[in-house]
This record gives sequence, structure tokens and C-alpha cells, in this order.
Amino acid sequence: MNVAELITNMASGARQAARGLARAGSEQKNRALLFIADGIEKRAPEIQAENRKDVEVAREQGMKPAFIDRLMLSDRIIHEMAQGLREVAGLPDPVGEVTRMWTRPNGLQVGRMRIPLGVIGFVYESRPNVTVDAAALCLKSGNAVIMKGGSEAHHSNMMLARVIQQGIRSARLPEEAVQVVPTNDRQAVIELIHKDREVDLLIPRGSEELIRYILDHSRIPVLRHEKGVCHVFVDASADMDMAVSVSYNAKVQRPGVCNAMETLLVDARIADVFLPVMVSRFQEAGVLLKGCPKTVARFPEMQKAEEDDWFTEYEDLILSIRVVEGIEEAMDHIADYGSRHTEAIITDHYDRALRFVREVDSSLVLVNASTRFNDGFQLGLGAEIGISTVKLHAFGPMGLEELTTTKFFAFGNGQVRT
Amino acid sequence: MNVAELITNMASGARQAARGLARAGSEQKNRALLFIADGIEKRAPEIQAENRKDVEVAREQGMKPAFIDRLMLSDRIIHEMAQGLREVAGLPDPVGEVTRMWTRPNGLQVGRMRIPLGVIGFVYESRPNVTVDAAALCLKSGNAVIMKGGSEAHHSNMMLARVIQQGIRSARLPEEAVQVVPTNDRQAVIELIHKDREVDLLIPRGSEELIRYILDHSRIPVLRHEKGVCHVFVDASADMDMAVSVSYNAKVQRPGVCNAMETLLVDARIADVFLPVMVSRFQEAGVLLKGCPKTVARFPEMQKAEEDDWFTEYEDLILSIRVVEGIEEAMDHIADYGSRHTEAIITDHYDRALRFVREVDSSLVLVNASTRFNDGFQLGLGAEIGISTVKLHAFGPMGLEELTTTKFFAFGNGQVRT
Repeated sequence: MNVAELITNMASGARQAARGLARAGSEQKNRALLFIADGIEKRAPEIQAENRKDVEVAREQGMKPAFIDRLMLSDRIIHEMAQGLREVAGLPDPVGEVTRMWTRPNGLQVGRMRIPLGVIGFVYESRPNVTVDAAALCLKSGNAVIMKGGSEAHHSNMMLARVIQQGIRSARLPEEAVQVVPTNDRQAVIELIHKDREVDLLIPRGSEELIRYILDHSRIPVLRHEKGVCHVFVDASADMDMAVSVSYNAKVQRPGVCNAMETLLVDARIADVFLPVMVSRFQEAGVLLKGCPKTVARFPEMQKAEEDDWFTEYEDLILSIRVVEGIEEAMDHIADYGSRHTEAIITDHYDRALRFVREVDSSLVLVNASTRFNDGFQLGLGAEIGISTVKLHAFGPMGLEELTTTKFFAFGNGQVRT
Repeated sequence: MNVAELITNMASGARQAARGLARAGSEQKNRALLFIADGIEKRAPEIQAENRKDVEVAREQGMKPAFIDRLMLSDRIIHEMAQGLREVAGLPDPVGEVTRMWTRPNGLQVGRMRIPLGVIGFVYESRPNVTVDAAALCLKSGNAVIMKGGSEAHHSNMMLARVIQQGIRSARLPEEAVQVVPTNDRQAVIELIHKDREVDLLIPRGSEELIRYILDHSRIPVLRHEKGVCHVFVDASADMDMAVSVSYNAKVQRPGVCNAMETLLVDARIADVFLPVMVSRFQEAGVLLKGCPKTVARFPEMQKAEEDDWFTEYEDLILSIRVVEGIEEAMDHIADYGSRHTEAIITDHYDRALRFVREVDSSLVLVNASTRFNDGFQLGLGAEIGISTVKLHAFGPMGLEELTTTKFFAFGNGQVRT
């Protein structure tokens, strides 16, 4: 069977499975999740044996320790995967929820009901535990999923797929509900993104090039995470200790992630009090600082920020700092250079807090808290399959609810249109 | 200025206007809508003079009376446009609505707030009154819109755009919030669909070719209406009078629209009672009937339905009829041949009514009511910019709420991640 036939078969299998899954009750879906969790724990030795093959290849190819670390299915990761499945089983099932219901003057009772999207194409890289997390979220939300992982995790992913499908079968659900593409042939992705009759949504998690390629070549809607150029604005009325601790956390706690701060905006009225403390804290933590002219005027040894810096997601211990003349200039800066990801204001001023929340156009806007909270678990969604930085369908962390849509339904007693 | 520069300027003007509009309060937006309504009534003679130019061109080109009728801005249509604007002004403003709010264990208060999408690209044909309806919905939902109408309504649309922008200016909002592309050059659409940095959503209303072209050439998300192959299933327990009256209404009341019935499914147990009455009603109304083998066996003079018929949206007084062995076969038929638009069951059986509503995967599923109710006004949304038959973002009629998305916000008092 060639790749085109393979993907065609997988897509039609997924479409078929999606119908069965959409009808399945919460109990049956939860049973599948719990069977998978047990399977992962019971078959850990097999899973880790397959995982070692991937790790060996990566070592032979001279990959960096961080890469190998992300690839490795340690006992701890095995346990976390099983635990994650049990947690998803414990979350409320969004499918079938009637979000609203009302009665029309002609007596027609109209409602909106959450339903699964159908078939999801999930293209991702590296960490094999993502295979299990994504399968859990798709299953629970009643969606079939076709997953194409990276070649670096091929053996691990195929083994996990077997355990997942066994759990699904044990719960008497169609095993084609979760399928992992069993080839590293890049043609598989090309075939998958052209299945616009079978696949309802694509979620690519990977390089910017991969996302662009899919956007340019597929008719299927794409939910994606682009950039995270996150800002903290320290308002003139900010509590100093809080401003320092939140800004520090936003930059330093985990600089390599999308919700870390990249630019610090400081009201000019507070700059002379705040910046000396903040700058020395950052310097102690080894953060490379780049300043606007007003910042550099205060710290002549500081590197000058270039125009490009304001657009840059460093994903590293690097930070741009700009002194602004109040909230208006701060919000203009965010609108001009930001990526609609996460922005925070530190303030004790009631009106400016509410204005910032209302007017800043980002997937999460915070008052007096770290940008690092933009995460499905942290915000209370229970889990996430990614963070969307586009506004259509879902904006921000995507949990179970974001993997559904709503249909209208109506109960009548013979109504016709006149 | 060439077309590329023109669209670039319009797109950046729209982006800028969208920021102002997103901040505007309901009162200011409603004032703009009421100014536009007044303007349309006051300047009706000018509008109709421009409209006559389009009508003359259409007549010279020998267009059909139905086409010219749709193009014409009669006194009644002028009145309806103004009335429509006033009704949209009276609808609740979705922007700023907090749809939910909860508190995390760390004290962070998290909420979701409705916000505008940003800039909408609306590509449509024919009826110039759509220009006003779409402008009203976009304005009220806080979105800037760039509209590209058909060349057949060019003079009418340009004149309406002037009246709309005057109303927007009078309310002290940015007039670039509503822009009509002032050229019939087809290149304008090509330029517009490539503005993926400025345009957040495309809504094409037109030919299947136009929609395919946009899907194939744009990275911007597209909300669209594909086909309406709507079904009515008459269950064995159906009330006969109701089954006849609803089926008749679904097919005959306005056969040319997307929510008219195209296929009638009849439970075999009731076929011999129901079909003779129904078939003669349809024949009286001049409906051309096409039957499955079991139907044709009962009415030997009836035309035989071919495989293709079950997929066809006739948009005419033509109907396919199939006799099925119960609800299971009916739902399979809908899944195999339907277009996820609108399906109705006529039944007095409690369990089958609920199963049909739960399991049928369409944007509107009705019990004991006509498919013709799939419409934003009829379902109580107040207005609609179209009906989506894709599941992402909006599924079914799109009103004001569907022109928004939600962002997360969080009120903290110094929370950081550990």
C-alpha cells in the first residue's frame, strides 16, 4: 500500500469512527481512558524498550541532551501519562451539554448543544507523551484523531498507539478513533492536509515553516500557535514589590516557553524607582537586557534595543525594556509589536486595570499576575491541546470545550413557516 | 493608485479602525446605526438614482427579471434596510460580555470576555441591501469590514457606502470601519484574500467556485455556506396531518432556498398510509418527485431517483423520496448523503425524537417542525450574516455573537508561578 492509499484508508476509518464516538456516552469514553492508563502502566517495560530505540538513534545522530531528555519516557513520565489520562477521565464531558435554550413566539423551543468537531489531524514533534495527552483530549471530546508525530519518536509513538487502541477496543469503541500515521514519509502530511472531506480541523504543533506550509496548502481550518511576544506593563501606581516579583517570574522562571515575558514596559513616572531594583535583579539572574533610549539613558552600560527586538520572541534569558509615557503608549506598543498572546499590567489603579483588561487584544490579559499563567491547567481548563493565537474558533488555551462546536436544535409541535 | 496599493491602504485603514471600534461603547455604535438608518431614508432619492444605473446595465445585458428584481432598491427595500439597522441597534451588544468567571485555588479570578474578531473581509454578490445588513452586524459586533460586492450592484453599493460612512462619522467613529472596494477589478479579491496580517476572517457569499478559489488561495480562516441537502424523516409514529403539513412546507413554501427539503425519508411501516396523501399534495403543487425502488414500487409512474439525486440540492420544485427501515437507516442516509445543514424528524416517539436530536450531525436538527426555520431571525438571533455549514468557529446561522471570539482575563494580587 502506498502512502496515498494509507492516508485515504486512515481518513475514512477515522470518519467512520467519529460517528461511533460522537454517540458514545461519557462513561464509555472514560472507561477507555482508564483502560489506556492501566495499559500504559502495565506495559511500561515494552513502551520503554521501544522508546530506547528512538533514544539510541538520537544519540547516534548526536542530538543535544535537552532533545534526548524530551524524548525519553522515564518512569516518571510513564506515571504522569497514566495520571493525565485519569485526570481527563475525571473532567466533565462537554459533549451533549445544552449551553442555552429559549422559546420562540411560535412555541418552538430552540437550544444549542455541544457536539464533537469530527476528525482532527494533529501534526506534532518530539515528546512522545504528547501522543497520549492529545489522544485523551480527543477521545473525551468525542473526536477521532489522526496523529503524525516526528520521526525522532517513531518507535515510541507506534507502541503508544498500540496501547491506546487496545484500551479503546476494551471499552468497545472503534479503535480507528485514535490512529498514529505508521510512516515517516513526509508525503503522509501532504496527503493528510488534503483530506478536506474527512478531516475537520488541523492542529499543527511545530516549526513556523510547518505551520505556513499547512496554511498554504490545505483547505482545512487550522488552529495554531504562532508567536508569544508577551509584555508586562508596570503602571505608575504599581506596588513595587509586586512589580518586581511578577516581572521576575514572567521572565526568569522558565524563559524558553511561549508565555514568558519578552518586553517590559515601564511608566516613566515610576521608572527611576522601579528600574534600578529590577535591573539589578535581572542582572543577578543573568538576563541580557536591551533598552529603549530612555532606559539606556538611565543605564548607559545597557545594550540598545533595535526595532527588530520589539518583535522578537527570545525564548531565552534576554529582555527588552521600554519606558513609556503612561498606559496609552503602553497599549499602543502592545498593539504595534505584540503577538496577541499574553499581556499583564501591574497596577493599583482601578480604572487603568479595567481599561487594560477591556482594551488589550490578547488571548490572556492579566492584572497583577505573571504572564506564565497562560496555560490550560493553570487557568482551570483541566488540560490543553495547545494555545491558539488566532481568534477564530478558539483564542488562548484549548481544552475539551474548544475541541467541540455547537449545533442548534429545536423541539416543535408542527410549526411551519408562513 | 493601482489595485494592490488600494487594497493595502484599505486593509491598514480597517486594522486601525478596528482598534477604535473595539473600544467603542454600545451607545456610540448604536448611534452610528441610527444615523445610517436616517441617512438611508433621507437620501433615498440619491440611492435610488444610483441604483437605477445598475438596473439599466442589467437590463441592457438582458438579465432575467428575477435578477433585476433582486437588484432593485424599491421604496419597500429602502424602508426594510432602515428598519433592519434600527433592529440591530436594539439587539444586545455581545462585546464585553463576560461569559463565565471562576476562581483558581491560588486566588486568581479568571474570566472569559467576548471581543470582536477584528477585520472581516466580506465578498458577496447581487442584492445591494446585503451591503447595509452586513455593515450593521459588523459595526455592532465591533468589527471593521471590507466589502467587495458584485459588479452588477457597483453604483448602488458605492452610494450606500457613502451613506454608511457619513453615519459612522456623525457618531464620531472611524469611517474606515466600513469600506466598500471601489473597483470591479477582480484583482481586488485576490489582493484582499492575501492580507492575512490585517484580515481576521473571510466570509464569501457566492458561487461554489468563488469559495473554492478563496479556500485554495488564502491563509485567512473562511466561514462559509456550502450545500443545503436537507432531509425530513417521517417516523412510524408520526402524526399524519403534521407530517404532511411540515413536509409540504419544507419543500414548497420557498423551494429555491438552502433550508428547503431536498429528500423525504419515510419509515416503511407508515409509507402506505402517508405516501399516497403526501404524493398527491406534492403533485398538486407541481413538485417533480423521484423515488427509491420501494417508493417507485408503490407509484409506478414516478421517476426513479439515481444515486446522484441523493446528493443534489435541487433549489427547485423537485424532491427525492426514500422509504427506510426505521430511524437507523434514516440517520445512515443523512450521514452518507447529507450536507450537515438542516434535518427534521416527525415523530410522536419520545426516545426516537431525542436520539435524532443527539445523533444527527447538522447545524440545525428539528423535531416536528419545518426545515425552513434554519435562519438567524427565525431561531431568535435577531439577524444573520449567513449560515455556516462548517463546524469551526460557528455552525449554523451566524448572528452578532458569532462575529466575536472570547479572550481570557485574570484579576490577581501578585500571583506568580512556582
